[in-house]
Amino acid sequence: MPSFYSKKDLFFQLFENQNCLELTQLPYFSDHSKETFTLVLEAAEQIAEKSLYPIFREMDRQEPQLVDGKIRIHPAMGTIIRKFGEDGWINAIFPYEEGGQQLPWVIHLAAGFIFQASNYSASVFPFLTTGAANLIRTFGSKELKEKFTPKMFAGKWQGTMALTEPDAGSSLSDLTTTATPASISGVYRIKGQKIYISAGDHDACENIIHLMLARIEGAPSGTKGISLFVVPKIRLDGAPNDVLTQGIYHKMGYKGAPIAHLMMGSQEECEGYLVGEAHQGLKYMFQMMNEARLGVGMNAVAIATAAFQASLAYAKERPQGRKISEKDLSKPQVPIIEHSDVKRMLLFQKSVTEGALALLIYCGILSDKIAQETSAAKKLKMEALLDLLTPIAKSYPSEMGVKSTSMAVQVLGGAGYTTDFPVEQYFRESRIHPIHEGTTGIHGLDLLGRKVWLQEGLGWKTLQQEIQHSLDQVKSIQELNDLGHSFEEIFLKFNHSAGELLFKRNLGPEKFLADATLFLEASGILCVGWMWIKQAISAQKAISSGALEQSFYLGKIETARYFMEYELVKILGLIPRFHAASYPTVTMEKDWF
Amino acid sequence: MPSFYSKKDLFFQLFENQNCLELTQLPYFSDHSKETFTLVLEAAEQIAEKSLYPIFREMDRQEPQLVDGKIRIHPAMGTIIRKFGEDGWINAIFPYEEGGQQLPWVIHLAAGFIFQASNYSASVFPFLTTGAANLIRTFGSKELKEKFTPKMFAGKWQGTMALTEPDAGSSLSDLTTTATPASISGVYRIKGQKIYISAGDHDACENIIHLMLARIEGAPSGTKGISLFVVPKIRLDGAPNDVLTQGIYHKMGYKGAPIAHLMMGSQEECEGYLVGEAHQGLKYMFQMMNEARLGVGMNAVAIATAAFQASLAYAKERPQGRKISEKDLSKPQVPIIEHSDVKRMLLFQKSVTEGALALLIYCGILSDKIAQETSAAKKLKMEALLDLLTPIAKSYPSEMGVKSTSMAVQVLGGAGYTTDFPVEQYFRESRIHPIHEGTTGIHGLDLLGRKVWLQEGLGWKTLQQEIQHSLDQVKSIQELNDLGHSFEEIFLKFNHSAGELLFKRNLGPEKFLADATLFLEASGILCVGWMWIKQAISAQKAISSGALEQSFYLGKIETARYFMEYELVKILGLIPRFHAASYPTVTMEKDWF
Repeated sequence: MPSFYSKKDLFFQLFENQNCLELTQLPYFSDHSKETFTLVLEAAEQIAEKSLYPIFREMDRQEPQLVDGKIRIHPAMGTIIRKFGEDGWINAIFPYEEGGQQLPWVIHLAAGFIFQASNYSASVFPFLTTGAANLIRTFGSKELKEKFTPKMFAGKWQGTMALTEPDAGSSLSDLTTTATPASISGVYRIKGQKIYISAGDHDACENIIHLMLARIEGAPSGTKGISLFVVPKIRLDGAPNDVLTQGIYHKMGYKGAPIAHLMMGSQEECEGYLVGEAHQGLKYMFQMMNEARLGVGMNAVAIATAAFQASLAYAKERPQGRKISEKDLSKPQVPIIEHSDVKRMLLFQKSVTEGALALLIYCGILSDKIAQETSAAKKLKMEALLDLLTPIAKSYPSEMGVKSTSMAVQVLGGAGYTTDFPVEQYFRESRIHPIHEGTTGIHGLDLLGRKVWLQEGLGWKTLQQEIQHSLDQVKSIQELNDLGHSFEEIFLKFNHSAGELLFKRNLGPEKFLADATLFLEASGILCVGWMWIKQAISAQKAISSGALEQSFYLGKIETARYFMEYELVKILGLIPRFHAASYPTVTMEKDWF
Repeated sequence: MPSFYSKKDLFFQLFENQNCLELTQLPYFSDHSKETFTLVLEAAEQIAEKSLYPIFREMDRQEPQLVDGKIRIHPAMGTIIRKFGEDGWINAIFPYEEGGQQLPWVIHLAAGFIFQASNYSASVFPFLTTGAANLIRTFGSKELKEKFTPKMFAGKWQGTMALTEPDAGSSLSDLTTTATPASISGVYRIKGQKIYISAGDHDACENIIHLMLARIEGAPSGTKGISLFVVPKIRLDGAPNDVLTQGIYHKMGYKGAPIAHLMMGSQEECEGYLVGEAHQGLKYMFQMMNEARLGVGMNAVAIATAAFQASLAYAKERPQGRKISEKDLSKPQVPIIEHSDVKRMLLFQKSVTEGALALLIYCGILSDKIAQETSAAKKLKMEALLDLLTPIAKSYPSEMGVKSTSMAVQVLGGAGYTTDFPVEQYFRESRIHPIHEGTTGIHGLDLLGRKVWLQEGLGWKTLQQEIQHSLDQVKSIQELNDLGHSFEEIFLKFNHSAGELLFKRNLGPEKFLADATLFLEASGILCVGWMWIKQAISAQKAISSGALEQSFYLGKIETARYFMEYELVKILGLIPRFHAASYPTVTMEKDWF
């Protein structure tokens, strides 16, 4: 079986580069150890290899179809989803008393990475159920919890997140789905439409449980009048709940996971059950959103990792041409990995995927620490940092995932464009991530317009300190002198320019935020550069201490060098905008196009 | 019908920004005028609108299939190809005495742009036949010409270019298809395999005429031993020619055009007819290659243009959110084109596609002038410039086409990812261009390793002079002062760094060429920046002379400004490599990945 991820690298990230075992020092995680984490990850690998990867291509070719009002998906998915339930994957992160394993979220994220790399479409189903169940258990009543979560945890019922409507995509404040109180307390009649609902209907589970945003009659307008409901496809008494599957979207990639158009209440018979308090729906959603967004970042990294592995394997085997200095045509052709430009394309992928993976694991550990932190001051600081990093850790992998999978296609050349190889599928699948869970543009606004300013810039300042700390470290290691120097130069320039940009807030939101996406892009490159500094330090430590597998560590350092010299410098092409005095994206008029 | 290109812009490019009517001063083109050119382009638009665009989605969904050894394509293609023949499109650029219309190649290229923007798959068939017929008429004997070209011109026979083999893709010197002299002079027995042959077999034409590279027995090794043959699928006497369609490739995009795997001589009965002299095949091919490469650049621009138009139309109509400074939610949502970040994504597409179109038209006019130039010295200089620009004009549109169509998807958000809109198809189709007709990596080597140095740098120096000329012009126009200043700053930095890079030739080819692709990328951005300077000058002239449609010209200038401030500056992120002292893509070892 071709490898779709690097176990060596994942373990390096978790246990060497960032010490996730620190978490086991915390009382909540104290039953865990390197052994339990390893067992979890190896179990994930087994499922991925035995059940998910083998149907990865098939699920793309046999798209879900809407037949007689029901969506049919790949026949293997029923068994797979149940297996996820039975083996405890869906509720692994929840407390013992809820049947969970108190697994750190970062390990869950790492296991998800393995699933996603092997078959992104298949990985979507349990991921969604975990998210939906988490909303119920965190904010719902005891009754809701008892009625819904056990079957969701068991993989018998599918969970979904139902936010988007035909006229309210990025603009959630314009939601129009309504909820009218019924005679029973907490029960509402739901009426409206939802579009692009992932796993919104399918035949692999007995029921579909939508966590749906709607507006209770008379609620304030805007985001403050939105409430959260549990809306099952089939009611607990077994009767259908007037949730119609109006349509299925056919899409460019991850075709195995169906996306539905739902219509609620066309017979005025759709029941929904309020989660928590009225009008708090969006707040609840957003408390889960950080993790969902990091999850999307991880999806993007996983797909790009699989594409990298596929192109790496091809490059090692495919003979074509000779070294550029070799003029003797009687010599055999060499594998294309011998060509510098092919190595450049592989280094690009390696640096982007492993750097982004490092960032997501950093955020994952931070998230676990925050949940257990007892000092309010420390917690505030860590939360500020995670809030700040979230749009970056969602967007960098998503945007670069498209470029990285594109590079994988390029390594294979004509072969990569055909369906004989999986890279074209990875390329198509990766394209969703800059769109869902907030487009890149939305995250740019979130970062520059909101996150940077929260708590008087606490998150931003904390990030600067953390980066400076790594920089001080690397500068003390002689072998990595050049890396530290390269990084510092760009870090200083970035900071200087970012400072200029922040002053532009005085110009009003239109101009100030005009280049928010570029600021997000530059911040992403910087953070991943920082992650490569961290990785180089860890690798140099291993080399100096005489670790086995020197080649792995040498590769890490060389890739860090690649990142500094080819990717980090791209910040230089973005920061001129931070100083700019003209605003073509503001002043361009729509009739001028 | 949605618009898939801007007629206004195409006419601006041809008649205002670059004066293609200069060509009509030359004796060979003297029968032509703005009227004849306009007629040609409007006829192209009619075919595109009536026949090509309507089946653009369908051809993607009903892929060609290999049935009983024959490839079946969309049933409408037979009529369409014949119409291309009957209306004189296939041989339009050839001389009157060969039945052509002596149409300038640039007008043919512009008409192709319209066809390709409406339906790339459909446009491939006549484009290939023109190229193949051109090889026969330029290098073939009178007999070959008489026997093959008339039916090709008529659209009855399909032409192909058969180069690639399973073990020889980018490395043409490793071709192994053999040609053994038969008893009749000029006739050879061909044996071997060819892969990825576009339109290599289909049922819409009576015959398929392959222009095939093969090695005559005893020929020298390498590229100097390659000869060119005409290999028909069916011989002139109506007997099959032992060319088997061994397979069809299914691919990510432009699915309507079949790509075949061919096997010649499995029964030892495949006849081929030598074109021109033995061992000159690659030279012949390469004499046609410039135009083929510019053609691929144009394909990429055309697809990205159609995607831009689709996303522009969507952005003007789709209401979502409010202006960022508008806090009143009772106000209606605004079309997304009102958002600066959406305008940024549209400006990106507009600047890339219109800038690349300008570059290709520049090259097209240059090519027509070269063919008619009588002064050897002038010709040499123009040829050097075109040779230098060719890898750039192929690669910039190809690489940026992928990014530009990706941006079109992003403008539509979730909708763009579904098959309800055409942008996902454009995204998939555009991905082929960095691969075929020489990968981007190959063109980087061609530019930095070869083209820059030819004739003691004549092409390179000529380019510098031409750019300097435009720069002097723009600096004399007060309204465009800021543009001239922005461009000059980067132009000087690029030149300085490029100078440093050229000195690295002393380090040997491995290191010197390690960053050839980055040099190509930076050169592409520079040349397209130059094209925007030219367009801004033309637009300002029109405004100053009180032209109608001011908004079109204002849009041109604002887009030029966008390009300088957002795209041209990306050169700053590339040139640090030109000075670099370490070479991670050279020193990275394959076991380190």
